[in-house]
Amino acid sequence: MPNLKTAAVHTMTNKPWALAECCDAYVNAGIGGISVWRNVIEPIGITEAAKIVRGSGLKVPALVRGGFFPGFEPPVRDAAIDDNKRCIDEAAAIGAEMVVLVVGAVVGMSLEDARKQVAEGISRVIDHAAANKVKLAIEPLHPMYAADRSCINRMKEARLCCEQVQSPWLGIACDVYHVWWDPDLEREIALAGANGTLFGFHVCDWRANTRDLLNDRGLMGEGCIDIKMIRSWVEHAGFKGLNEIEIFSTEKWALDQNSYLEQIKRAYVEHV
Amino acid sequence: MPNLKTAAVHTMTNKPWALAECCDAYVNAGIGGISVWRNVIEPIGITEAAKIVRGSGLKVPALVRGGFFPGFEPPVRDAAIDDNKRCIDEAAAIGAEMVVLVVGAVVGMSLEDARKQVAEGISRVIDHAAANKVKLAIEPLHPMYAADRSCINRMKEARLCCEQVQSPWLGIACDVYHVWWDPDLEREIALAGANGTLFGFHVCDWRANTRDLLNDRGLMGEGCIDIKMIRSWVEHAGFKGLNEIEIFSTEKWALDQNSYLEQIKRAYVEHV
Repeated sequence: MPNLKTAAVHTMTNKPWALAECCDAYVNAGIGGISVWRNVIEPIGITEAAKIVRGSGLKVPALVRGGFFPGFEPPVRDAAIDDNKRCIDEAAAIGAEMVVLVVGAVVGMSLEDARKQVAEGISRVIDHAAANKVKLAIEPLHPMYAADRSCINRMKEARLCCEQVQSPWLGIACDVYHVWWDPDLEREIALAGANGTLFGFHVCDWRANTRDLLNDRGLMGEGCIDIKMIRSWVEHAGFKGLNEIEIFSTEKWALDQNSYLEQIKRAYVEHV
Repeated sequence: MPNLKTAAVHTMTNKPWALAECCDAYVNAGIGGISVWRNVIEPIGITEAAKIVRGSGLKVPALVRGGFFPGFEPPVRDAAIDDNKRCIDEAAAIGAEMVVLVVGAVVGMSLEDARKQVAEGISRVIDHAAANKVKLAIEPLHPMYAADRSCINRMKEARLCCEQVQSPWLGIACDVYHVWWDPDLEREIALAGANGTLFGFHVCDWRANTRDLLNDRGLMGEGCIDIKMIRSWVEHAGFKGLNEIEIFSTEKWALDQNSYLEQIKRAYVEHV
């Protein structure tokens, strides 16, 4: 049974809350960390955001999110590089260990070509990441997001990209929602552990009757994912980081967020 | 540019139509074949359905669908066997070349265990299929259906199941909607061709902003799938069957189905 100190909550999980509200609530709940989405930084600016996050004493596994590297035109790809560098700067400012990368995909471009552009894009920002001591974590996204969000849809393609870029600052964020169905998951988690690229572990659940492709994730225990089993693989692979709770849910965002956080705590202790 | 005689349309594509309306319309449109869903047989009975289909002169690649083998309790699995045998009988009656299998999955059962029960279930009906000269085609379903519809989500797991059962009557139906994102797709199609298990090829498209997990498929050309490329792989692998058009779409079902069939014809000629 995991201790709440081993958990971090993504601000997007409590979307109605501002950054300061998230920090206060997670500290009061005895949760160990926070992963920060850029949308909660934007209204207050990075200086204020850094002050709030650092003042909370919470650990900060990740800033979410960079990526979206592929584009047909070079100026589009250059703009993505600039934005990823800013994202790395923000991560350094709030003391985040890594930036999570949703790598991107473009309708009309083959996934294979898009993956080449992703590797190229990461290569262009990896020195900036290293200089700022911020890791970059490729998050393989579920195949249902392959059209326009991510050309990397399995742990394997994330691994191949890491092997290509070859930097200790590049690794993988493994989110059970995206990869639970993959028959190669156990093997790829073990490989990531052995390669030193298992940077992040995200939990939530897959509802059997998912009503929406984006915002209908389940609280841990509400769906079909054997989270305890996957967590055992991740720990067996040597993962020592916080388990990040990341739930996008229109249904949950409509709840009183304090009561919802109590549900999250119970779900974490019982089902992770 | 493919001839319409190389196409078959799934009755579910024109869901508002009864079986006789589908047959008449496809014959008049110069389409080569029809794949029949069981819901259009149910209201008229198999004898009448067989008369209509056989009288149309259309080729009949498939009856859709059998499968749903896994279950926690033996009686549930036995009932699935009985239903699959009835499905094979119906396929023989209408002269369908194959039964498409949506193999099933059960919340709370690991996908690995479910796949074992699928192989076991298929083994229990394969002789009945052979005796009726009806092929069985495993259709790998998109990973977004892994919770409760299909524990086989890639061509690879379909191949492993075929290798396990070892019968010339068992093969694979490859639907671009489910597998387009798979980095191993080209290789697995070639393997299926070499193994003699490439029984079916289904086309439609994946809309970039998919609004519903079940009924928001795109007409060929409306989405991100490079159908021509996948068709070239399939033909290179030796596939000689009809290209089956299978589109579930609440939006399209609301259209006048005669005008929609004209759109389908154009989309087939231009994008398949």
